[in-house]
Amino acid sequence: MEILFYIAYRNALSLAMLQELNEHFESLEKQCIPPTSTQSASSKSDENASLLRALVISSNCEKIFSSGHDLKEMAESNDGKYRQLIFDECTKLMLRLRALPVPVICQVDGLAAAAGCQFVASCDIVLATERSHFSTPGANVGLFCSTPGIAVARSVNKRMAAYMLLTGRAITANEALISGLVTSISPTIEAMQSQTESILESIIAKPASVIALGKQFMYKQMEMNNLADAYSQGSKVMVDNLSMKDCQEGIDAFLGKRQPNWTHSNE
Amino acid sequence: MEILFYIAYRNALSLAMLQELNEHFESLEKQCIPPTSTQSASSKSDENASLLRALVISSNCEKIFSSGHDLKEMAESNDGKYRQLIFDECTKLMLRLRALPVPVICQVDGLAAAAGCQFVASCDIVLATERSHFSTPGANVGLFCSTPGIAVARSVNKRMAAYMLLTGRAITANEALISGLVTSISPTIEAMQSQTESILESIIAKPASVIALGKQFMYKQMEMNNLADAYSQGSKVMVDNLSMKDCQEGIDAFLGKRQPNWTHSNE
Amino acid sequence: MEILFYIAYRNALSLAMLQELNEHFESLEKQCIPPTSTQSASSKSDENASLLRALVISSNCEKIFSSGHDLKEMAESNDGKYRQLIFDECTKLMLRLRALPVPVICQVDGLAAAAGCQFVASCDIVLATERSHFSTPGANVGLFCSTPGIAVARSVNKRMAAYMLLTGRAITANEALISGLVTSISPTIEAMQSQTESILESIIAKPASVIALGKQFMYKQMEMNNLADAYSQGSKVMVDNLSMKDCQEGIDAFLGKRQPNWTHSNE
Repeated sequence: MEILFYIAYRNALSLAMLQELNEHFESLEKQCIPPTSTQSASSKSDENASLLRALVISSNCEKIFSSGHDLKEMAESNDGKYRQLIFDECTKLMLRLRALPVPVICQVDGLAAAAGCQFVASCDIVLATERSHFSTPGANVGLFCSTPGIAVARSVNKRMAAYMLLTGRAITANEALISGLVTSISPTIEAMQSQTESILESIIAKPASVIALGKQFMYKQMEMNNLADAYSQGSKVMVDNLSMKDCQEGIDAFLGKRQPNWTHSNE
Repeated sequence: MEILFYIAYRNALSLAMLQELNEHFESLEKQCIPPTSTQSASSKSDENASLLRALVISSNCEKIFSSGHDLKEMAESNDGKYRQLIFDECTKLMLRLRALPVPVICQVDGLAAAAGCQFVASCDIVLATERSHFSTPGANVGLFCSTPGIAVARSVNKRMAAYMLLTGRAITANEALISGLVTSISPTIEAMQSQTESILESIIAKPASVIALGKQFMYKQMEMNNLADAYSQGSKVMVDNLSMKDCQEGIDAFLGKRQPNWTHSNE
Repeated sequence: MEILFYIAYRNALSLAMLQELNEHFESLEKQCIPPTSTQSASSKSDENASLLRALVISSNCEKIFSSGHDLKEMAESNDGKYRQLIFDECTKLMLRLRALPVPVICQVDGLAAAAGCQFVASCDIVLATERSHFSTPGANVGLFCSTPGIAVARSVNKRMAAYMLLTGRAITANEALISGLVTSISPTIEAMQSQTESILESIIAKPASVIALGKQFMYKQMEMNNLADAYSQGSKVMVDNLSMKDCQEGIDAFLGKRQPNWTHSNE
């Protein structure tokens, strides 16, 4: 019933690559149930058969997840507008990872550097092999990783973010785990794949509409400073969630000790 | 002299349970020295003999700290106002844990799930046994843990918060420690109790008024984005603190290498 | 060519010591390339030969990095204005650590307590020996570590910050690493020194101007709640960075597989 989408990710984030990924994401968004709060009459998917439930992103380059922006491309142009376009496309992609109404799982095996590390730090769940490493080395070539730092500093603690950005040195998978950049590490690619499938089973077992609603509010409340304000909005989200068909079905199934039968719609 | 209060916590956070806890907290608040900045002429406790100095919260259910809201209760009512009332009572309780002018220590042995996990993530200090685990599995029954996520995402790093909320899977005590949900883990309940008592000794050795003042400003500054603003307010708090009787006594005792004799008042 | 400055740090942060450090920092600032965005026509260093590239701060007291403010000094004065002056000087110093346009590396061997812990938590990169420990024990003498808590709570997770501030108990180097207070720990002073030199090599290999620009924006974006806003500003910083001479040289050298020849200027 549900489709799990895998993107095999390539080495450099050239403008063409960023645009291709953005177009890709645009089509993926149409395969998702939108969050309730942004629903419109026509937003309901006609066929749940083609419903996207999760996105898994991995690399098809051995030992490199992504090395970030294409420096050659940036250097060739002296055009500020062209360069701005590259960063605009990049930002659009990063915001899309967060806005996509399904969980985005990133599989890292090898190096994630600069905008590649930013990409990793912009996914919901990050799985990595032990041999992976992560860096923001832009200052080595005179281009400080200022935009990658935005995603990195929102993931890891200040002391590690400053270390990565100011020294450009790579951190190990274990350091990435302790400092908060990755969710978990696996000894091998096979173990990481097996863990991915186990996580996907957990996601598929839930109603798409509820995950969409939940992911949207999760990132919203994370940006709110005031705890009381966040609870005030959160309580409203919970009350709205309780009136959804799939919530009523879910609780009924739970209390009746039976399997739920989800509609996946946001009604 | 000082009373340490233990709440034995029960399984589900039903509306009745939330209201009972809120009433309980209201009476506990009256046993506390209020923070200096909110003091009034009449706020001084007449008898320090009954002064609350710390709150320790544990569970009297084996293997379960709390499983969160009562789903049956929520499902039975179709009344949005009634449901809103449940979340309002819950929010009130969570904000009270933070506002209580004494340290709140949570002892977890077993599962803390959904609003139970939110409760844990709302305490000042969290001690857990190794066998404990923590989850926000609401989406499994179609009710995303949006409000628990508010407390959880303010405790753990983004990558772990998203994993917990989007997959509903439990994390171990060790994962909770590394990601910031708990303060420390103990091999056994006895070891946790022994650590609790050691922590309580540290708290009791301090003046109640100063802890009240300090806890209040600690959470206030945590919500401030601008570092210079936080320091500006913090310096004022320090200067006010220095003029308190118990501070003068404390520094005098320290310099004189003698035991301090606290008044515990906020004068 | 580049000067790396070492400050040997002494025990108590008396007013005289704070003022001395602030004067010291003022002269250090003049040895730095200012960040591009604050550049003025006259800001360019005439001689890169005397250019400050990094600051390493260590202690010359065995087993104690710093014990914080001088309590005797604070107790002797009943003058609120005098006390306010102490905290104003302290805040100025902490903000300077962050504003200094070169990486600030702190070497901790032994105890960092109260404002000494605040100092550590205000540096960019913190290296510590295994035997080091960190505490904010002010409430023991009736003076809650409210200002140290500002730096500490912006470094470690909430559960550890509350534990440190409310109990006054010290945490180990390993707990400091896991909770985010330090970047890494070394078994010995020699190993810490060797790691420091390795980090300094990484920093020296980069253009001073780009590090200055990058550090400034790094702390700016860390204080921004809204992700899209941070990216909007970050993209502009990247585009400006790309037009700097040292960036053009760096990318050209990278693509040509040769060593870059930095100007270190912010042109």
